[in-house]
Parts: sequence; C-alpha cells; structure tokens
Amino acid sequence: MFIRFVTTGGTIDKIYFDEMSQFEVGESQVKHILTEGLVNFDYDIVSMFQKDSLELTDKDRQELKEFIAGDDAERYVISHGTDTMVETADVLTSIPGKTIVLTGALSPARFKTSDAVFNVGMAVAAVQTLGRGVYLAMNGRVFEAGKVRKNRDKNCFETVATDRN
Amino acid sequence: MFIRFVTTGGTIDKIYFDEMSQFEVGESQVKHILTEGLVNFDYDIVSMFQKDSLELTDKDRQELKEFIAGDDAERYVISHGTDTMVETADVLTSIPGKTIVLTGALSPARFKTSDAVFNVGMAVAAVQTLGRGVYLAMNGRVFEAGKVRKNRDKNCFETVATDRN
Amino acid sequence: MFIRFVTTGGTIDKIYFDEMSQFEVGESQVKHILTEGLVNFDYDIVSMFQKDSLELTDKDRQELKEFIAGDDAERYVISHGTDTMVETADVLTSIPGKTIVLTGALSPARFKTSDAVFNVGMAVAAVQTLGRGVYLAMNGRVFEAGKVRKNRDKNCFETVATDRN
Amino acid sequence: MFIRFVTTGGTIDKIYFDEMSQFEVGESQVKHILTEGLVNFDYDIVSMFQKDSLELTDKDRQELKEFIAGDDAERYVISHGTDTMVETADVLTSIPGKTIVLTGALSPARFKTSDAVFNVGMAVAAVQTLGRGVYLAMNGRVFEAGKVRKNRDKNCFETVATDRN
Repeated sequence: MFIRFVTTGGTIDKIYFDEMSQFEVGESQVKHILTEGLVNFDYDIVSMFQKDSLELTDKDRQELKEFIAGDDAERYVISHGTDTMVETADVLTSIPGKTIVLTGALSPARFKTSDAVFNVGMAVAAVQTLGRGVYLAMNGRVFEAGKVRKNRDKNCFETVATDRN
Repeated sequence: MFIRFVTTGGTIDKIYFDEMSQFEVGESQVKHILTEGLVNFDYDIVSMFQKDSLELTDKDRQELKEFIAGDDAERYVISHGTDTMVETADVLTSIPGKTIVLTGALSPARFKTSDAVFNVGMAVAAVQTLGRGVYLAMNGRVFEAGKVRKNRDKNCFETVATDRN
Repeated sequence: MFIRFVTTGGTIDKIYFDEMSQFEVGESQVKHILTEGLVNFDYDIVSMFQKDSLELTDKDRQELKEFIAGDDAERYVISHGTDTMVETADVLTSIPGKTIVLTGALSPARFKTSDAVFNVGMAVAAVQTLGRGVYLAMNGRVFEAGKVRKNRDKNCFETVATDRN
Repeated sequence: MFIRFVTTGGTIDKIYFDEMSQFEVGESQVKHILTEGLVNFDYDIVSMFQKDSLELTDKDRQELKEFIAGDDAERYVISHGTDTMVETADVLTSIPGKTIVLTGALSPARFKTSDAVFNVGMAVAAVQTLGRGVYLAMNGRVFEAGKVRKNRDKNCFETVATDRN
C-alpha cells in the first residue's frame, strides 16, 4: 500500500512566533505524526502550500486538483485548514479513480493537546478502507464530500442533511 | 453513529509505579484519547479487563466474545495488548453481524511519544467505514483478522501470506 | 515555606483561538505546572493581569508593585511576558524585604515543546535560595534585575555589562 | 557560567521495553530537557551509570565522588534515582569547594506528565545561586544534604528534623 500525503497548511501546522505574537503556518507536522504512529507502509509527502485555509484561492484549489488528477498514486491524504476544507473537497470530487481523504486539526499539532494525531490516524485508516471518492476525517467522523459542513459556532464538523428534491 | 469501546488492558494503558520499578496496567486512556480527538459521536466505554495481553486466558476471550455477541451495538473498538491481539481477533471472528476493530499501542499512551492516539484514531475510522467483520488497526494498517501476525523481532504487525493452495 | 505566585499573562499562558487564527493570553498554566512538578510546599496563585507584556502599562506595573509591597508574603514568583519583563523587574526593585523572581516563556506552556515548565522550576528554586531582591529566571540563567536585557535578535536573555565607572 | 551534568540513571531516564513488559533505564533525558529549556550557558554531560538507584553500590558512589573531587568544574548537577539519592548526597558532602545539586524524577521524563523537567530546572537554578555544598532539588524544594529523606509512603522528599544533641 502506498499513500501520498499532500500538505496545504492550516491550523494543524501552525506555529507561534513570539516576535509577532501571532500564529503562522510552519513546517508540516505530518511526517512527525506518521513517525509517532509507527506506520509501516510506503508513503511520501508533497508540500504544496503553507497557508491558512481562508487564504487558499480558487487558483490554488485548481492547482491541487490538477496535481492529483495528473499524478500516479491511488490514495491521497491531504492536510488542510478547517475553514475551507469542505470547499476544497468539493473541487476535488471531479477527479475520477482515486481515494482522497482531507483532514486537519482544530488546534495545532505542536500543542500538548491537539486533535491532529487522532485525525491523521483516522485519515490513514479511511484512505485504505474506503472506495474511490473524496472524504473528510474530522471530529471522529468520516464524512463524504458534499454531505458535510463546518459548524463554526460549535467549532466542529457535522453532516449536512441531503435534500431529496 | 454509536461506537462501544471495550478496554482489556495492554501496553496502551500501562503506567509506571515507582515503588516496584515496574509497569502495570492502569486506568484506560481511551476516554482521554477520544476527548483529545474532539470526537462528535455517541459512545460508551466498557472496562472489561486490566491485563497484560499475555495474561489473558481462553476463558477471558470467551467472556469477551459472549459479551459482544449478546450485546446490542453494531460497532466495537477493543483496546488490547499487542502480544495476543491476533489470537483474540481470531476468537471474535465467529460473531456475526458486527464490525469489530482491535487496536492498542506498542508504547504506553502516557508516554510523550506513543502510537496510542494514532491507533485509536485509525480504529475509530475503520469501525465506521468497514463492513461486518473483525479487524486490527496497528502500524498505520488496517488488517483483516486471520491475515495478520505480530512480528516480534521487528516489533510490528504485518500481513500473513495467505495459504499455499 | 510559602510562595505566592502572581500571574500577569504573557506567552507562557497563550492559547490559540481558531476563529481569529490568533494567539491570546488564556488561563494561567502555573497551577498546572506546579502540579506536574509534584511540589510539596504551601502556595497560592493570584491572577493579576492576562496581557501580552507589550500591553502592560506603567499603571499596571504600579498596581503590581503596590500589591506586593502591601502584601504579607516574603517570596514571590511572577509569571510575565518576556518583552517587558526587564522593565517590570526594574519597577519592583524598590520594594524592600522580599525575594521576587520573574519568569515566563518564549513559547507557550500549552505547546508540546516549551521552556515554561523548566523556567517555573528555576524560579521556584531561585526564590527559596536567594536573598532579598528582584531576579529573572530565563534561558537557564538567574539574573539580577538591572543587569539583564532581552536580546530580541537572538530571542534570549543575557547579562548586561555593568557600567564602566 | 559552566555546569557539568553527571547522569547516573534512575526513574528520570527510564524507558519501557515491550518485550519484557518492564521499565529499564534508557539514554539520559538531560540533554533533551536542557534543549527544551532553551538554556544559554556552557555545559557538558557525563554519562556515568545507567542504573536504578537501588542497584548503585558503595563502589559506584565512591567512583562518582572521586570523579567529581578530581574534576575541574565548580558546579555539578547529578541526575539520580530517587530511592538512594539521599545516600549518594551524603557520600558527596566530603568534597570541598564545589556546588553539587542532585535531582531526578518520580515519574520518567519520557512520560507526558512527569516532574523531570521541573526538577532539572530547579537544579540548574540552585546550582548557580547556592554556595559550596551538596543539595537535593525535588518536590519543589531545595534541601541540604543531611537534612532530607525520601518518605516512601507519601512518595516525596521532606526535611529531616535535626537533632540538637
């Protein structure tokens, strides 16, 4: 089994710079998380963007989509900011023949307490057990793209009731 | 979605007692891990054993099997010591109509660096994406019961080549 | 031995709020650090400010000084932002008859990797081994007030060469 | 300022080996702790023993004493198991002209929650603020050798009342 990880930034990779008293996206924590998870499969990590997901543009999403569509792997885990993870998932759904799972974190992986490791663990399991399609792994749930939203008030992801009409 | 967690002990829950300069199985870390994972689904946790898995007996395995077979949930995540996780999985395969994922850790969840959180994340994703059956989530892989062994020399789980015919 | 801890905010207590993608001063981590340090002495914690130290005003410093001068304890550990820790120390030097140690952290205590615990440990030792006066405990050093500055380029505290006369 | 660290083993450096389901003394965590503490002074680390302190012999203590007595540094921090830290401190008190602080931990530094970092922070402060002599830094207290014991029931260090005769 081979998994290609694509990092795009987001809270999961945020780091604190004292000089600016501000959090910015730092180097990806995915490699570190996989090492801690003692994973025993082939993978590589492609660093694509280092952005807060609110700053990701339509052009960025298009670039990500074209990269994956033209790439030779079958399974992708994408680390992504939570604010527009749903939007990026929607863009990727037109890619055929691949299993793609987006994940991220509501607090930085560099924190003592963070959902980052749990979420990447979920994504790794989901990308190898699910069929073709695009999914989100957050808050202990695996969601299908198009059926999920971020509830900003509750700061968590939830299923969107699908309309039947 | 509802998941019932059953804890049986193992390295994942080990704690160090200074007086004896020895590690013993402590209170389960599963609740703590789920809280850190910010999970947003219904669950409960049943504490069944607090044993090193080398000390689990056939009778213990039978008791676990009968509990799950007679219980009303559909999805189970079982935390378990790694040394006999494969054996327990084999015993559970005769239970029909349920999705059961065993997981654990090669180093204690109370350690700064541990595979525990990653593994429970994997198990939670696997138990909701897979159909009926018994599985192991370890070392970044989801294995089917009956097709996996612990390689004690490498201290990791690996696929067993299926029979010679 | 009794130590009174006074918290004033700073990086040590910073927390990340996703909604604003920004770090703000959260609840003090001092209590948590002392618990982890298994300390066995009498103490209490007074929460005075929750500010980035760049936002502390002359009036704030005066208030802190008057609180300590009029208070009945002999030993004080003050958690403080690093940017103006030196200035606050200078203001406190006119208080007679007390041992006061300021400390803080260059990265938040809530981070997996932080100097916060080490620094509070240093401050607790320094406040019980030193005589009357005002001190800073940072970067593995105990400095006397008036003989220390923050080197912002190197992001660390260092001794100031004393005057030529 | 120069500090020489001498590591002798103990709980602070313990690590868990799954194969034996047992804790053993691993590589010293002192270097890692000093890095996390962002210390800015000159030091080196001498690894002398890797033993549970119950296994340290009179000969070991003599060897440690001779090493320090014949060595050129002025300040020493010794990491040590807690069970016989007091005994080793007693042996070292006959060394003249040096400041020596023993410290260790009641739970391993590799644990998520441990007193190790706090204690090393204390020792580093104590060794630079105290005059010649031998001290223990544990449980938030700096004790003088000869006036401290480990209370095994409470699992903490405490002052011994000195006899007047």
